[in-house]
Amino acid sequence: MKKHNFSAGPSILPEFTKEKTAEAILNFAGTGLSVMEVSHRSKEFVAVMEQARELVKELLGVPEGYSVLFLQGGASLQFLMAPMNLLEKKAAYLNTGTWASKALKEAKTYVGEVVEVASSKDQNYNYIPKNYVVPADVDYFHYTSNNTIYGTEILRDPVVPVPMVCDMSSDIFSRPVDVSKYDLIYAGAQKNLGPSGATLVIVKESALGKVTRPIPTMLDYRTHIANDSMFNTPATVPVFGSLQTLLWLKELGGVAAIEKVNQQKADMLYDEIERNRMFMSTVADPADRSRMNVIFVMKPEYAELEKAFSDFASSRGMVGLKGHRSVGGFRASLYNAMPVESVQALIDVMQEFEKNN
Amino acid sequence: MKKHNFSAGPSILPEFTKEKTAEAILNFAGTGLSVMEVSHRSKEFVAVMEQARELVKELLGVPEGYSVLFLQGGASLQFLMAPMNLLEKKAAYLNTGTWASKALKEAKTYVGEVVEVASSKDQNYNYIPKNYVVPADVDYFHYTSNNTIYGTEILRDPVVPVPMVCDMSSDIFSRPVDVSKYDLIYAGAQKNLGPSGATLVIVKESALGKVTRPIPTMLDYRTHIANDSMFNTPATVPVFGSLQTLLWLKELGGVAAIEKVNQQKADMLYDEIERNRMFMSTVADPADRSRMNVIFVMKPEYAELEKAFSDFASSRGMVGLKGHRSVGGFRASLYNAMPVESVQALIDVMQEFEKNN
Repeated sequence: MKKHNFSAGPSILPEFTKEKTAEAILNFAGTGLSVMEVSHRSKEFVAVMEQARELVKELLGVPEGYSVLFLQGGASLQFLMAPMNLLEKKAAYLNTGTWASKALKEAKTYVGEVVEVASSKDQNYNYIPKNYVVPADVDYFHYTSNNTIYGTEILRDPVVPVPMVCDMSSDIFSRPVDVSKYDLIYAGAQKNLGPSGATLVIVKESALGKVTRPIPTMLDYRTHIANDSMFNTPATVPVFGSLQTLLWLKELGGVAAIEKVNQQKADMLYDEIERNRMFMSTVADPADRSRMNVIFVMKPEYAELEKAFSDFASSRGMVGLKGHRSVGGFRASLYNAMPVESVQALIDVMQEFEKNN
Repeated sequence: MKKHNFSAGPSILPEFTKEKTAEAILNFAGTGLSVMEVSHRSKEFVAVMEQARELVKELLGVPEGYSVLFLQGGASLQFLMAPMNLLEKKAAYLNTGTWASKALKEAKTYVGEVVEVASSKDQNYNYIPKNYVVPADVDYFHYTSNNTIYGTEILRDPVVPVPMVCDMSSDIFSRPVDVSKYDLIYAGAQKNLGPSGATLVIVKESALGKVTRPIPTMLDYRTHIANDSMFNTPATVPVFGSLQTLLWLKELGGVAAIEKVNQQKADMLYDEIERNRMFMSTVADPADRSRMNVIFVMKPEYAELEKAFSDFASSRGMVGLKGHRSVGGFRASLYNAMPVESVQALIDVMQEFEKNN
């Protein structure tokens, strides 16, 4: 039976990425060796790192003056590195969910002064705060573009009077972004990019070197810029896998092209949630709905059918649909690699379940 | 032509590890999904993490009261994490090479007081200092068990009056170790364990929580202990690959069995270096010679033949033999997965080159 992988992350990757990675695990770039066992300083692997960096720049239109890095430690380590490198006086954070809140807490507890400009915690993060004011005297404004757990997304670059720092872990490469508005963009690879273990960082070089604190070597972006992400051994297979996905995305037409497909998939599923008498969205304002993670729950009158739907969906090959414990219900993650056919398969299952019950 | 992979790291892995990983990249544990795209919280991946942890404990005889973690960031991040978690008053470091020196510098520059008990820098690290004194009032004694660049190794646990911390990146699992003497052992995966991107940490739980400094979340071992290495998304493919190597090693008979093979391989190659009129070891005392990284250079009278030997060896399928720029010459890394046949192939090449010139 065909599996439809709606996991929130690590999550579905293109067949291309899987095939090319499996090949390279056995024979990488004609070396007769595995990509797992060649030196990261071999010309074949250096070419992987360079090509990945260049494709990130090309696909996102990264301007001159920015460096693209592949680090380790995920967004969780960036919650610390971002303020260590950029926060001198104070920083402003928008609190839209679990990850935004963790980023804010790490900066505030271990680095410096943080202003929480707004929070949607009062309603279990089911909306994106609007009309907040970002003070003009902060070093940067930090936000999380997509909230994987709560299914909300900030689809347009906020307009604020300071440079921005953004955790784009779960929607990077899903649409165009104006990188020039950001001092720093970071993203764990394991949603739209590749296997977990690589962390993409796009950093404006001129924003660095302005803080007075000492920064430990591995936490200093300048270390990694100066060494082309090879100060220490990078996570070679995750970087190789990420490159394959970038190649696949370029072939598809890039972020503008994939955005159209992402919009189509999200529209299909949200329309079904609206139409189906059994389900409802948990996001308060339709404008805040995530295109990447579609959260839905049983309507109160059908609450007792939750397990039955879960079992039925599993029996039809749906994987990873269980919602996060903070929200309950279901979460269908529709990352770039998710085909329209799988979204249709989920809709069919929802309709059949409605008919049968 | 068969390739013989003498790379220093990432380096040769067992065929078993490569085959099983390539399989799992396409279909992991019968899920029909790639190991790259399943949730790290799926029961299938949680089983990988648990089994890897248990096998580390079994193979190294890790006593009760220790936690085994799979983190990210390599030994380079451990250079910071180790002192942040364990250094309150001061620590003693033995300086035996580039990595030992980096570990010492990171602790001293960013964390606290460090005593360098001895250094072999005066002779380009070509020996292991002996008869140094570790003060009894330090929090720990840090050393690097194998010096990848200089080809020296400390084969027996030092006897010191304090708990030890050891960077075993390049010889872990090559021989038995008495873990009870250590507060902390850490190792990047990319030599004897698996693909780069995973960092193995073995830490004594009772050694933690004694420092007064605040420790950022991701740098605090307690964070990762409390979450079974899943506080954030682990590097799933590197952990999966590491598990395969652990399974392979267990099947071979474990660390005591592999130690015999490692000794045999090292003896074969050092014997040839001694015998061959063209080559010489750079390590001052034969007792300090590494079993993992065998460094040799042309004797002065044959210095002009270095490139010719390099080309000849390459033409016979030898890969990764180039020595580190700090030492020059050649480096044959003989990690666990290196078959005796490949060592013999290198010896044959050395003998043929001697005969031809």
